[in-house]
Amino acid sequence: MRALGVDPGLSATGYGIVEGAGTAFRLVAKGTIRTKPGDPLPRRLRAIFAALERVVEEHDPQVVAVEEVFLAKNVSAAMLTAQVAGVVALLADGREFLSFSPRQVKKFICGYGDAPKVQVLGMVEHLLGTGGLVSDHAADALALAVCALLSRR
Amino acid sequence: MRALGVDPGLSATGYGIVEGAGTAFRLVAKGTIRTKPGDPLPRRLRAIFAALERVVEEHDPQVVAVEEVFLAKNVSAAMLTAQVAGVVALLADGREFLSFSPRQVKKFICGYGDAPKVQVLGMVEHLLGTGGLVSDHAADALALAVCALLSRR
Repeated sequence: MRALGVDPGLSATGYGIVEGAGTAFRLVAKGTIRTKPGDPLPRRLRAIFAALERVVEEHDPQVVAVEEVFLAKNVSAAMLTAQVAGVVALLADGREFLSFSPRQVKKFICGYGDAPKVQVLGMVEHLLGTGGLVSDHAADALALAVCALLSRR
Repeated sequence: MRALGVDPGLSATGYGIVEGAGTAFRLVAKGTIRTKPGDPLPRRLRAIFAALERVVEEHDPQVVAVEEVFLAKNVSAAMLTAQVAGVVALLADGREFLSFSPRQVKKFICGYGDAPKVQVLGMVEHLLGTGGLVSDHAADALALAVCALLSRR
């Protein structure tokens, strides 16, 4: 089973593909899609769509997991992130689509919702058998992909 | 100049195409795209995307105007509407893209931001030379299209 995790963001969208078989996980691909702040919104969304479409076509994940957009202090930023999440959901048509809150990710990966971010990252590294994951959008996306695989057990 | 107005909504997305030349406006097309509440989010977004893509291809609008998603009491509903708005913005790539708040629409069409909805509808009917527009998603979309044309004068 192969999962695509996506951490949506207009300036930077992280993605990660993880393959899971039983208790074994394998990192297949990861990356961050960046868009230019000066570009019009449609062009930025199109760039994210096109890049993620290539990832989906190349890796053909059965499940797509996205970080649930929560309402931060900055409402207009949350609205933009929700627009990116809509573009991600669009790409998930025909596949299983899941969304997780940051708290759910922590709970699935570390066992409790208050786990610090560094612990989530450590656990993802442990599960994927990789080291040196830096805390960024791609790492968050990998956590979502692992979370999707764990949730389907 | 041809404008597409879109009133985004997950259950019902209204659209309207208006042609404007000087002070003359003409209704070209209007409709409402409905999706099934029981369908998964990706399928519903894909249905909206596909239907609007056909409208864009058929009518080739130079400008696309969408209603700005504002934060209503129901935050999760607003987040879903924002996801639909993202799908609309994606389709506007390569065209001029505008967004208007309900208040801006009222101001552009009736001259003041506190205009009652029925007055906006009456003015849109007057400008388009049509009667019998009922207050619905398609009418709201036509108002957005007219607003886009008025704003570009």
